[in-house]
Amino acid sequence: MAARLSEDDLIARFFAPGAAPEGLGLRDDAALLAGAPGDLVLTTDALVAGVHFFADDPPDAIARKALRVNLSDLAAKGAEPVGFLLALALPTDWTEDWLAAFANGLAEDATAYACPLFGGDTVKTAGPLMVSITALGRIETGRMARRDGARPGDLLYVSGTIGDAALGLSLRLGAPALEAGLEVESRRFLLDRYLLPQPRCGLAPAMRRFAQGGMDVSDGFVGDLTKMLRVSGVTARIDLGLLPLSPAARAALSIDRALIETLATGGDDYEILAAVGQNEAADFERSAAAAGIKVSRVGTVAAGEGAPEFVGPSGRALAFTRGSFSHF
Amino acid sequence: MAARLSEDDLIARFFAPGAAPEGLGLRDDAALLAGAPGDLVLTTDALVAGVHFFADDPPDAIARKALRVNLSDLAAKGAEPVGFLLALALPTDWTEDWLAAFANGLAEDATAYACPLFGGDTVKTAGPLMVSITALGRIETGRMARRDGARPGDLLYVSGTIGDAALGLSLRLGAPALEAGLEVESRRFLLDRYLLPQPRCGLAPAMRRFAQGGMDVSDGFVGDLTKMLRVSGVTARIDLGLLPLSPAARAALSIDRALIETLATGGDDYEILAAVGQNEAADFERSAAAAGIKVSRVGTVAAGEGAPEFVGPSGRALAFTRGSFSHF
Repeated sequence: MAARLSEDDLIARFFAPGAAPEGLGLRDDAALLAGAPGDLVLTTDALVAGVHFFADDPPDAIARKALRVNLSDLAAKGAEPVGFLLALALPTDWTEDWLAAFANGLAEDATAYACPLFGGDTVKTAGPLMVSITALGRIETGRMARRDGARPGDLLYVSGTIGDAALGLSLRLGAPALEAGLEVESRRFLLDRYLLPQPRCGLAPAMRRFAQGGMDVSDGFVGDLTKMLRVSGVTARIDLGLLPLSPAARAALSIDRALIETLATGGDDYEILAAVGQNEAADFERSAAAAGIKVSRVGTVAAGEGAPEFVGPSGRALAFTRGSFSHF
Repeated sequence: MAARLSEDDLIARFFAPGAAPEGLGLRDDAALLAGAPGDLVLTTDALVAGVHFFADDPPDAIARKALRVNLSDLAAKGAEPVGFLLALALPTDWTEDWLAAFANGLAEDATAYACPLFGGDTVKTAGPLMVSITALGRIETGRMARRDGARPGDLLYVSGTIGDAALGLSLRLGAPALEAGLEVESRRFLLDRYLLPQPRCGLAPAMRRFAQGGMDVSDGFVGDLTKMLRVSGVTARIDLGLLPLSPAARAALSIDRALIETLATGGDDYEILAAVGQNEAADFERSAAAAGIKVSRVGTVAAGEGAPEFVGPSGRALAFTRGSFSHF
């Protein structure tokens, strides 16, 4: 059955109903985006089953994650979503039910985040499912928060909480001590943080107005921070006691103190790391609060080019054997 | 060795040297495209090894094809290339030599076609190589040649020659009669037409100035024409005797007349199909000639909603059992 649906029929049935006017009904070779003032911010993130998610994750969650990891990039840059293009490689065993649920989750998130589908391509593959999304955002000219924008003296902030998704992934892969020691509510929270990123789109205005530099934390706090500092040509001193942790992550730490490394270096946080000038810090905090997004100051940018210095709650310097989680 | 190269190192080494300023050195999460007057045309095409190309094709040819199929869409819409984003899923057995050749071919074509790399994502996959490209083009506001733009009375043109790539694919898959009957030069020409599309970028000005409707012919002339007519709410009469054929395709036809179906319905032409008003036809032809691109008038758009009528060289109506080559 499923294999007999042509690509055009598949697109018309599952994707065209939720597409934007710019997508021209998904019946053209291309989408048409009218010019508008400001800069365009462009980002591409691709997810592969077995690497970035589990092949048996709910199809709507896979679709949402694929869009949200791109929305997280736009938010970190300070841009407002405009729309996205989707390249979907379907494995041979896809079903219409699976695709309907995938398309439905995608359409719901596209509406919720005001980032509609502009177009794309659907292909078959002998390999695992792959979802590649290119998202477009718009921003006032010259206001993008760049990775290379951190300056000595800037305060470093992170949004939300760090490390939850890494613990959620540990639970998915099997972590007997955590399974035994954590309440069911905590386990559910951590698993959900891995399954469904919460892009901090509400922080975009604060980023473009008040941040010097920014990126989203997707490959681990320690590694991504180190990247931003290196590209900016600076270093930093980080107080790990200030790293924002959820109650569930605190509970996990109380079971095993060594999990601090998992929390600080694990991936899939999709929080925002911002470098904010000291004179803009109060405005940045107020703007974030007005958007209902928690931001926590974790350290200060310093002149120099070495690795950042991490100081633990006791004031003792810490080093990480594994700087960054790499999907690659 | 190869597996130890991090994603960042891989990007810095193979892709950053050829990237555009908009790519910010490929060290940011996003690319930054300054606003400019006019509309943006956006297209995504994904290629999978074993479906759209052979896994053992030369890596530079795979890269060129992935970019060129997107450039072909931009040209058919009348847009000038601006840049592209790349999602590359590498199978586990990739080597640095392979990737260097891929990146080199991509960079050479990006320069040749003035369509530089803006950014993207590199991931690993347990499946076949996949290359997904999203290309951006720019065009004067309201000038895009749309699939739904064909009107009764318009003349239908195709660029270049039709069916060469389908014959090239037949040769790749094994076609003893063609192998025996065609000169080596003809076989080489047909194989190359499958391996390396020649996007008709030079036709873009004629398309945006003089065409009512347009699309690129990538899934077969008969099928793609039928799609454009259906979306435009019209039909057409096509004189197959006017279908532009290369000397090699003519030689193949003289070996087996039944190959007309392969020529007319096979995929991978990457030529342009244009619907041009009768008053603009002379200007369209002159503009194409000035760009050095052959265009051939193959028929006329007519009112009505049925399938197009195909008339053979003898004046006899033809029907095709297989309307379109589908990669899906």
